Amino acid sequence: MYYPEPLNKLITALGRLPGIGPKTAQRLAFHLLKVPASEARDLAAAILEARQKTIYCSICGNFTDRDPCRLCSDPERDHSCICVVEEARDIIALEKTRQYRGLYHVLQGAISPVDGIGPEQLRVKELLARLHDGKVKEVILATNADVEGESTALYLDKLLKTLGVKVTRLAYGLPVGGDLEYADEVTLARAFAGRHELE
Amino acid sequence: MYYPEPLNKLITALGRLPGIGPKTAQRLAFHLLKVPASEARDLAAAILEARQKTIYCSICGNFTDRDPCRLCSDPERDHSCICVVEEARDIIALEKTRQYRGLYHVLQGAISPVDGIGPEQLRVKELLARLHDGKVKEVILATNADVEGESTALYLDKLLKTLGVKVTRLAYGLPVGGDLEYADEVTLARAFAGRHELE
Repeated sequence: MYYPEPLNKLITALGRLPGIGPKTAQRLAFHLLKVPASEARDLAAAILEARQKTIYCSICGNFTDRDPCRLCSDPERDHSCICVVEEARDIIALEKTRQYRGLYHVLQGAISPVDGIGPEQLRVKELLARLHDGKVKEVILATNADVEGESTALYLDKLLKTLGVKVTRLAYGLPVGGDLEYADEVTLARAFAGRHELE
Repeated sequence: MYYPEPLNKLITALGRLPGIGPKTAQRLAFHLLKVPASEARDLAAAILEARQKTIYCSICGNFTDRDPCRLCSDPERDHSCICVVEEARDIIALEKTRQYRGLYHVLQGAISPVDGIGPEQLRVKELLARLHDGKVKEVILATNADVEGESTALYLDKLLKTLGVKVTRLAYGLPVGGDLEYADEVTLARAFAGRHELE
């Protein structure tokens, strides 16, 4: 099908975004042509500005506009506890719980031999560097509950225990609001294994 | 939840797109921060370029990078037939059928008293202007099959018939591959009313 060339380019560029198929890309492109020019310009400017001004925090590896990031430089937070996550976006999810007041460490990936990603490709060295002064008492492994996340957690657990730091892993179990009937057997088995007395 | 300000702006700008909720906006924003800088720049440039270079065709109202558009200036197409659609994107859908070789006319909306859109807000005057020289023999009303599209079709039908031009409307009926059981009663009633002998 024929589109004017600039529209074609826009649809192609939008179609490269994750979860945006050709139909959605087309709808978004037509939307961007219909909205006031300022709105389209704002989006383009926001993309460029985010790329220019957002950097990785040199300590935790989170996205930030200043180094060290607000979390790492916040004296109110518990600097004796580090929560290890795969991606910066995982921090957002954890912060939303308002349960955790410690620091974070972003690995920027997970161990995945298939994709050629070993511990050297991750920010493991940087994590070890943060543990050297002995101020950190606990490392919480909050990698994903999939094969890669689990391998990464096992690897880090082994590695960090040799340093004498307490290493914990997020609990597996039934999701809140979940129906026993619909839980898969692995989750259910883990929920069994992790059972505890009510407080 | 706290994001660095440039990231926040990007998420807000992405969240304004249709069908993009806060979660998707966040995922897209993080994606744009992770991809090579050139890819993010390409998207921003494509948005700006599309806005700058895409104009409305002065004849049919379709998006184009030159005026008149390729469809209106194509001598191979049937200039005696105009298909009236609500939006430029409808042309794409119709062109994909490869059934129609005539011209188009984009109304840029549909009659909707609730939204304060009457015939004056649509490109009806421009449509009438195209019919004045008597070269157009048929106008096909291809507005949507909803209340606004139907009202617009009825309005145009009345208006255009006074000019002595043949006015037709897209057929209503069962969608191909559709199950009788799942068709709503209005569609089914229309399919009945529009029944015809097999050729």
